[in-house]
Amino acid sequence: MLVNVPTDSDFSIHNLPFGIFSDSNNQTPRVGVAIGDQILDLHVLASAGLFEGCGEFSQNAVKGSLNDFMGYTSKEWRFVRQQISEFLTNDSHAVRLALPRHGLEALVEQSDSTMHLPCKIGDYTDFYASKEHATNVGTMFRGKDNALNPNWKHLPIGYHGRASSVVVSDTPITRPMGQRVLKMGEPPQFGPCMKMDFELEMALLVGKGNKLGDRIDIKDANEYIFGVVLMNDWSARDIQAWEYVPLGPFLGKNFGTTISPWVVTLDALEPFLVDIPTQDPTPLEYLQDSSKSGYDINLTVSIKPETSERYTTLSKSNLKYMYWSLKQQLTHHTVGGCNMNPGDLIGTGTISGPTPDSFGSMLELSWNGSNKICVNDENPEDFRCFLNDYDTIKLSGHCEKNGIRVGFGDCVGQILPAKTQ
Amino acid sequence: MLVNVPTDSDFSIHNLPFGIFSDSNNQTPRVGVAIGDQILDLHVLASAGLFEGCGEFSQNAVKGSLNDFMGYTSKEWRFVRQQISEFLTNDSHAVRLALPRHGLEALVEQSDSTMHLPCKIGDYTDFYASKEHATNVGTMFRGKDNALNPNWKHLPIGYHGRASSVVVSDTPITRPMGQRVLKMGEPPQFGPCMKMDFELEMALLVGKGNKLGDRIDIKDANEYIFGVVLMNDWSARDIQAWEYVPLGPFLGKNFGTTISPWVVTLDALEPFLVDIPTQDPTPLEYLQDSSKSGYDINLTVSIKPETSERYTTLSKSNLKYMYWSLKQQLTHHTVGGCNMNPGDLIGTGTISGPTPDSFGSMLELSWNGSNKICVNDENPEDFRCFLNDYDTIKLSGHCEKNGIRVGFGDCVGQILPAKTQ
Repeated sequence: MLVNVPTDSDFSIHNLPFGIFSDSNNQTPRVGVAIGDQILDLHVLASAGLFEGCGEFSQNAVKGSLNDFMGYTSKEWRFVRQQISEFLTNDSHAVRLALPRHGLEALVEQSDSTMHLPCKIGDYTDFYASKEHATNVGTMFRGKDNALNPNWKHLPIGYHGRASSVVVSDTPITRPMGQRVLKMGEPPQFGPCMKMDFELEMALLVGKGNKLGDRIDIKDANEYIFGVVLMNDWSARDIQAWEYVPLGPFLGKNFGTTISPWVVTLDALEPFLVDIPTQDPTPLEYLQDSSKSGYDINLTVSIKPETSERYTTLSKSNLKYMYWSLKQQLTHHTVGGCNMNPGDLIGTGTISGPTPDSFGSMLELSWNGSNKICVNDENPEDFRCFLNDYDTIKLSGHCEKNGIRVGFGDCVGQILPAKTQ
Repeated sequence: MLVNVPTDSDFSIHNLPFGIFSDSNNQTPRVGVAIGDQILDLHVLASAGLFEGCGEFSQNAVKGSLNDFMGYTSKEWRFVRQQISEFLTNDSHAVRLALPRHGLEALVEQSDSTMHLPCKIGDYTDFYASKEHATNVGTMFRGKDNALNPNWKHLPIGYHGRASSVVVSDTPITRPMGQRVLKMGEPPQFGPCMKMDFELEMALLVGKGNKLGDRIDIKDANEYIFGVVLMNDWSARDIQAWEYVPLGPFLGKNFGTTISPWVVTLDALEPFLVDIPTQDPTPLEYLQDSSKSGYDINLTVSIKPETSERYTTLSKSNLKYMYWSLKQQLTHHTVGGCNMNPGDLIGTGTISGPTPDSFGSMLELSWNGSNKICVNDENPEDFRCFLNDYDTIKLSGHCEKNGIRVGFGDCVGQILPAKTQ
């Protein structure tokens, strides 16, 4: 093995996620693969001939986004991943032996690198696919008996989000200004969001697309999914509450959405497939899928207040709780003929689990401000209902089974104060 | 004048809208300006040196989209338009005289051309800015006393739409399949949309953008608007009705949105500025604007059923009825820091007038199926409540004042049958 990977690393040889990076020696963003604490520079490997035989990947590895590669077939994605795996594990690999002769260095330290958005995101959609989350929100605002809307169990509810404001992990997020109602029944006032929140989500990135008017059959859906990232769908609850009837969330969401930089492929996640929760009523035929389509991915949200040096855990959840699968979301999205393009982002919606310590937002954890949440293990006096300025939120996620670990790295963002002028 | 422009032409010398075209002699999409029945080929004019002195426009005129040009300042947009105006009107213009010497032909027949999308649309937003439309829809579904939601008069309600399925005029639209409830209270069924509708809209295309976290002040808003097009926001009313609570329209809209190909600049529309309707209550300060910001633009919707050779008028409306101005829409959109990019599309929502013959959708014209609408002047037996397969809908719009006419051309789309397999 070329790289020594610690056993608790998210980026084992079983993972090999793709991302776009630059480093102090070469500031051109290019395709890399995370391995342990390192990044394998695919630009270098392409120039050394590792991807000969794989169409135009040698050229595309040079580019500053994954879109072209995403548009390949799943067979081609696999070929590239297989070449990389062999390069890393075969100590007598011809390309490996040739690199020093050409003065090439294939590895870059992650700590010396800057990560960029993995692709240009043409369209971004967010679903609402966790029954626990939808039930919590519904219970808060409509009472326990009407928690789930009549449509919720028949289709994956979703909405179009803002693609331009999707940013990569470590980008600061400015608290939005906006209209919110301070006292029920009174006119709205303009000012900084007072109910700033995170949402623990994952998201798929579309691989090859479909044409306008065509649809993706559920049995083929995985062929259209390039991979998965963590996503924090930052939410301004007070702005959202005032604006969202009847056309849905708008300014309450479009000031920023953070994704993790490393795209973990479905192939890497395959060992962690599990059944999704029982769906009752049985969905309509186009959404029916007898294969395993849930993923056992442990998810953690932690917070670092301005006054603290360390993170405190806010929530532990798991993607396996999600009611509607990724395949069902993608299939439903295209059933009316909506066209997908490589790099489109499709979020799951907040992934809450069944117990209060697994809820995926401050809205749920604090039950819309009724409970104060401790945000600092070392200082039980430091609590809040929503996020303060300079709070940093970190999402992390990993799978583990039979000694194999595949993780997502971190998805981090810090809240900056609103620009009041 | 280089071109003889009929008095009823949308494309007078006062208009000079920008678009992307190709023709049988040169199939490369490139920038053109409509004049009478002709297109002025800016690629040719750039190569003849007409735009020297205007930054990189000479290169950008060659491109197959307007995005780069849109990202210029309004001063630069004006300079280019001024150069074109002089070229057309000055019979001794040096570039005009030089063209034949170089064997160059600056004009192409519109009838011999294919129009393309004017730009790559990064994000598409649709507002709901007509009080008449919102009141009609609200009355139908919630009764007259609760027609407008409490937020409606305080902010321009809007939602994010699907950018990938925005198409240019003359692209056929496939009737979507989807879930809809046939009988209230019963489970949904899967099948072709049974309430296919158009929406008469206009839309602005963003010029230069703003950075994430910044906002556009209302007094500067026009500097960020490159121009305006007609838009048909095709709607599947039955699919929309079932899915839209609580996150807004999704598959009911994202199967296709049609825009007209020629982008009419705000400069061309300036003579037709009028006051917007009185806003009561006075909006919050960031939305206040004492300048004239409405536009007197006559809008017509007509239909051509499969059995007919000619169009029959369905509705006549006007942009001047719209409650929230284009400037207010753009300002509100960015007030929380949402970033705009050149070429982003922002629709007005359905533009309905005060009388039933000015309603901008079949939903309103037929009052959700209660009234049958004649779709063929020559056959009073040909009526319907929503659109049939092979119906063609045409939107058109023009301004006229003191003998000056500025128009938008047509925005056309035909409904094709659903793909049931």
